[in-house]
Amino acid sequence: MSKDYKTGAHFLGTIYTKDSKKLLLYRQAKKIISRAIKENGFEELGSFYHDFSQGGFTGVIALRESHVALHTWPEFNCLTLDVYVCNFKKDNGKNCQKLFEKLVKFFEPEKVIKRRIKR
Amino acid sequence: MSKDYKTGAHFLGTIYTKDSKKLLLYRQAKKIISRAIKENGFEELGSFYHDFSQGGFTGVIALRESHVALHTWPEFNCLTLDVYVCNFKKDNGKNCQKLFEKLVKFFEPEKVIKRRIKR
Repeated sequence: MSKDYKTGAHFLGTIYTKDSKKLLLYRQAKKIISRAIKENGFEELGSFYHDFSQGGFTGVIALRESHVALHTWPEFNCLTLDVYVCNFKKDNGKNCQKLFEKLVKFFEPEKVIKRRIKR
Repeated sequence: MSKDYKTGAHFLGTIYTKDSKKLLLYRQAKKIISRAIKENGFEELGSFYHDFSQGGFTGVIALRESHVALHTWPEFNCLTLDVYVCNFKKDNGKNCQKLFEKLVKFFEPEKVIKRRIKR
């Protein structure tokens, strides 16, 4: 086995929203996510989004520093959100949290269940 | 707030491999991942993969049931792997674990650090 992998930070959230319209279409969220990734010093490599015919969307976004993923559940008025960044070149933990909080805020949370994992 | 969101299963792994060639190019992994997703009863909606010029790759795969994500680190002889599936229509926990284990096996693990989260 070679050198140890440097740990990264992974935020996992379930967010109940006050504005369920934001759970329906991905286009607005996609813009906000791309901007927030850049503003927090990360690089988006590419992404895939899908609108469900019954409502809601899913998005997976590859970063140079790992990934962002979100899945919305209009029927439960919530979404799950992952922001995971590695610490390969520097400690990205603070910016990971800032990116996570920025995206949570966009969805106008009524309640947030949040967990931070070192990995 | 409406009804409660049904919990899903999320496996997070750091896998040190015996065969570091598997960390270098995504094409073989992509085929295996797509096949394993299908074989375990999940539906792939789309994906984005990226090969890094310095070696290694990253992949994010959107499922109807949530996502798979992996990031390889040839310099550390390891990758991180996420398999997250919701339990929206049925309990997918067992198949989530089977899919995770199948992908771990593909990378010929020397050591696996694994964590399962209910979310």
